[in-house]
Amino acid sequence: MAPTMKDVAREAGVSLGTVSKVINGIAVGESYRHRVEEAIGKLGYHVNSYARGLKTNKTYCVALLMPSLRHPFFALLTDELTKCLQRRGYHSTLMITNYDREVERQCFVLVRENKADGVIALTYSPDLTVDAGIPVVSIDRHMGPGVPCISSDNYHGGELAAEKLLELGCRNLLFLRIGPDVAGEADKRRLGFEDTCRRRGAAYETVILRDEDTEEPFFRFLRRHIREGKLAFDGIFCNTDSLAVRIRDFLAEQGIHAPEDVQLIGYDGMADYATGRYGCSTIVQPIAEMAEAAVNVLLDPDRKGGNVCLPVRYAYGGTTRE
Amino acid sequence: MAPTMKDVAREAGVSLGTVSKVINGIAVGESYRHRVEEAIGKLGYHVNSYARGLKTNKTYCVALLMPSLRHPFFALLTDELTKCLQRRGYHSTLMITNYDREVERQCFVLVRENKADGVIALTYSPDLTVDAGIPVVSIDRHMGPGVPCISSDNYHGGELAAEKLLELGCRNLLFLRIGPDVAGEADKRRLGFEDTCRRRGAAYETVILRDEDTEEPFFRFLRRHIREGKLAFDGIFCNTDSLAVRIRDFLAEQGIHAPEDVQLIGYDGMADYATGRYGCSTIVQPIAEMAEAAVNVLLDPDRKGGNVCLPVRYAYGGTTRE
Repeated sequence: MAPTMKDVAREAGVSLGTVSKVINGIAVGESYRHRVEEAIGKLGYHVNSYARGLKTNKTYCVALLMPSLRHPFFALLTDELTKCLQRRGYHSTLMITNYDREVERQCFVLVRENKADGVIALTYSPDLTVDAGIPVVSIDRHMGPGVPCISSDNYHGGELAAEKLLELGCRNLLFLRIGPDVAGEADKRRLGFEDTCRRRGAAYETVILRDEDTEEPFFRFLRRHIREGKLAFDGIFCNTDSLAVRIRDFLAEQGIHAPEDVQLIGYDGMADYATGRYGCSTIVQPIAEMAEAAVNVLLDPDRKGGNVCLPVRYAYGGTTRE
Repeated sequence: MAPTMKDVAREAGVSLGTVSKVINGIAVGESYRHRVEEAIGKLGYHVNSYARGLKTNKTYCVALLMPSLRHPFFALLTDELTKCLQRRGYHSTLMITNYDREVERQCFVLVRENKADGVIALTYSPDLTVDAGIPVVSIDRHMGPGVPCISSDNYHGGELAAEKLLELGCRNLLFLRIGPDVAGEADKRRLGFEDTCRRRGAAYETVILRDEDTEEPFFRFLRRHIREGKLAFDGIFCNTDSLAVRIRDFLAEQGIHAPEDVQLIGYDGMADYATGRYGCSTIVQPIAEMAEAAVNVLLDPDRKGGNVCLPVRYAYGGTTRE
């Protein structure tokens, strides 16, 4: 039988009212909160579904936690999330973390203080934990069993990129990734790419940089693999469009041009605002559908929603032969 | 232990009262404000808004009214506004109008219902009126005597563009504008451009499209001015970077290339996220400073602030000779 709030109270050695307060985000002493949360974890009590049902005073406000709006992917996602929430009569409280954990913490305080009903979070903090009773939907990162994760089909995106490069005649593949040191959905891009290379018997290498501000190590790696004006790789998959464009520009400076000498595929599907053109050939994420799914799962009163994985597609953007 | 206001005062070498003024948006000398903000950043000081909320009636929430975040200018502005508000212990409620007046109306209702302390608005509705008593700061548009307007120096931007094109040898100038049919600050780009042409005795034409989705009329106009592969204009100023890039691409299809055959300057200063390069030569708006000014004027309890006009600069982006 599923554990009840009473079981949690007994396990934690606190009153039922204290459990209720913790679940509803009402302030209680830190040690009480800790004991209740431990009991919830131990018993496998399904807080989220109950918490949502118990919440009576809705704010009709959802907090959006974004690293920045300088990257067009985050800006477009925020645009779609906000429009989607507005269609449901909700407001969004935007919080820009700039990779500052204190801002992330404050975001959850908002919900605890009953200033927002829930959070849609895109975060890269490795140790961010979500308090029980706070409805959260995560984008592109698994934050624990109680937090549904919305993502594009990163694994299939990696497969698609490898398939496409092989189909276009590439024989020596390379995967490049730069990103925060957090296990996330985006890791699957590499897995899909590598699995496909292995299945097809294709040669490949992988270079991963953790949380660095510069691609210099990639440039050094590539320089070492240029012999007599020829690059040892003829197909490169980068984990973002931004990286693919910078790698393309670096190689062009070395006299190695895409798509003639090397073919490049990025990930995200960022089109230039003015021209509508992709900056590079790319795996396109369905941003509007991801936003819609995140809002649907968050606002579903039963919180039945588990992880949602949405289909991606390949798009030509000038750095491949087609 | 979390840093306090006292720690900030010590670090900045100012009095506690000065720190309090900066945090509450009360005017202090520019150098004091700078030192306090630097100390806040260095110490990672965060305003405890919950504690503040108990002392006053404020919501510590500001509504941001934006047409969309798809355009990078709006995305960067929203990024800067939100970070600036967060530094003062405020949240931002983001509202995307998508040019829908009902959303704009709802934004003012938020303030009326005491769910936000004020509004920072970027809107193109011609008949939007602001109820007395609602604190509003407008960006790039004059909404009436009670509403301060923050803008870049559009008139001087127009002057700069004309001066630069003439300096680079252009003799037949053209100004192109596409935009909503609302009198706004951006109109001054044309005035500064035309005044400079007249003052310098330079030939110029002006073509303005109101609120249309397509540049097709511009293309027709340009086609009519191409004789034997030569365009009648050798210098074009466009009222946005987006337009300049599309005009450049259209002309290239006609065999007329920038900067060899024609020189183009846009307005905004939008750099590509991946490469950091400008899409075209441009007049750069100081987005971070505009956001800072909008927040300062809005949160100033005396609301003394009138219009603020911030300096622009020219930047090379490949569509002019330098």
